[in-house]
Amino acid sequence: MNISLQDAKALIDAAQAAAVRIDKPITVVVVDTGGFVVATERMDGARPLQPSIATAKAYTSAVMQRPSKMLKGWAESQPGFFAQVSTMGHHPIVATEGGMTIKRNGQLLGGLGVSGGTGDEDQEICDAALHALGYESAFAEWNTIKKD
Amino acid sequence: MNISLQDAKALIDAAQAAAVRIDKPITVVVVDTGGFVVATERMDGARPLQPSIATAKAYTSAVMQRPSKMLKGWAESQPGFFAQVSTMGHHPIVATEGGMTIKRNGQLLGGLGVSGGTGDEDQEICDAALHALGYESAFAEWNTIKKD
Amino acid sequence: MNISLQDAKALIDAAQAAAVRIDKPITVVVVDTGGFVVATERMDGARPLQPSIATAKAYTSAVMQRPSKMLKGWAESQPGFFAQVSTMGHHPIVATEGGMTIKRNGQLLGGLGVSGGTGDEDQEICDAALHALGYESAFAEWNTIKKD
Amino acid sequence: MNISLQDAKALIDAAQAAAVRIDKPITVVVVDTGGFVVATERMDGARPLQPSIATAKAYTSAVMQRPSKMLKGWAESQPGFFAQVSTMGHHPIVATEGGMTIKRNGQLLGGLGVSGGTGDEDQEICDAALHALGYESAFAEWNTIKKD
Repeated sequence: MNISLQDAKALIDAAQAAAVRIDKPITVVVVDTGGFVVATERMDGARPLQPSIATAKAYTSAVMQRPSKMLKGWAESQPGFFAQVSTMGHHPIVATEGGMTIKRNGQLLGGLGVSGGTGDEDQEICDAALHALGYESAFAEWNTIKKD
Repeated sequence: MNISLQDAKALIDAAQAAAVRIDKPITVVVVDTGGFVVATERMDGARPLQPSIATAKAYTSAVMQRPSKMLKGWAESQPGFFAQVSTMGHHPIVATEGGMTIKRNGQLLGGLGVSGGTGDEDQEICDAALHALGYESAFAEWNTIKKD
Repeated sequence: MNISLQDAKALIDAAQAAAVRIDKPITVVVVDTGGFVVATERMDGARPLQPSIATAKAYTSAVMQRPSKMLKGWAESQPGFFAQVSTMGHHPIVATEGGMTIKRNGQLLGGLGVSGGTGDEDQEICDAALHALGYESAFAEWNTIKKD
Repeated sequence: MNISLQDAKALIDAAQAAAVRIDKPITVVVVDTGGFVVATERMDGARPLQPSIATAKAYTSAVMQRPSKMLKGWAESQPGFFAQVSTMGHHPIVATEGGMTIKRNGQLLGGLGVSGGTGDEDQEICDAALHALGYESAFAEWNTIKKD
């Protein structure tokens, strides 16, 4: 199950509305569960490298199946190993704010990445967009083996 | 001068309308004159690698400053040299249908790339979108030295 | 809007004049707003790798849209993430002295990079050249959303 | 012995004068005997990727110590092997028109690369510039072991 283009665009609209409130032009990227881009929008005035940065955040959150900031502990405790892992995907695996897994009713749908503000601002924009559209905000560090 | 996000989204809407007419889900990418992504949309059902393919087409058309299909003669007459040139940019330089330079009143604004149909279909979708919005459709093989 | 070759050469001349004053052979690179080289000059006696270094500084300042030294805070606060971002462009994104965004009347025109002295000397040469030709010297950490 | 910046700029001026005669904006690159850039100039209207292409031509002609077009026989007779060799340098080794070794009185001084016209035009511009400034135009396919 992957996020639809319509739902991706709704997330982008909500993120842009949050960016307008802090008066910073941002780039928002939505990827599917495999980390492939569904939609990207770079606001006027937003810097050229933002799509690459936001894609890395969205990709990380989709394929690592938890928000990119949740990787910070790993990146700090095993910097050498994490540096190697960070190049093992199709895009960089980044341990930073501004990337969120998109999930509803326990179902993974993709990843959301925001670039254009401070790390905290990028994160707040992600959170605001996901909250506005009713996606989940809590993620576990580890998956479990499903039994039923 | 670079294309605005609003104008990029209008081009994407027009391209999607053309894709609906041939009943094929596509991905459309718009880049600025430096080849940096402004907007990407992958329609539901469109395959995962389309954004990469469409980005290469849009990038090529922006930085080579002419439609990507106009490079086919070069690619055919000097295949070895063209293969080397094709890796000199930030994205692959591709000699194929489905990439158009975005230009109005002689002013370069960016590049448009479409992936999802045959080469001819991708090209027709580009042409339809640019035509619908009044962009230029004729490009010279060579730039000239401006005098005034 | 990109810097013209004539204006790029005037900047190079001004930078070389500043280099003569400190008696160090330098390399100066000017790129356009997309980060593509407009002009490079390596003075006699200047070392072979300087063009690559100066290109990275100029590229960074053009596509990050602020002087390369303004990235030092980011590079220091998030070294792992910044290392990843530093490879996302067509040339390395460097957080160091000696790279300046070229801007006049609020209009981005390109990037200037100098290599050949200490970081401070390279920066002073950039500043002297930009000042001599009336370009802007103040840059904001963040862009804002333009309204009108 | 390497070409001086002043002599490199004189070659660039001569090449640009030849480009004006055919009304095509070009990029000219001069490298030293080690293949490191001495000077690059991209004329207004010249396309963004020309500096990369012209650098490859100049680099090839400097480090292969013969005009880049003289490699065409090799590239054609051993395409697989040549493709491998072509990536063994610091820049692509290209077998095409528009790159010339810079040599005077039997002394290698560097390489000249031109991009912006057809292969033949790029070559004619190189030839015109080298001729105007009295550099050699004849090169042997093979070096010999100097005896004296």
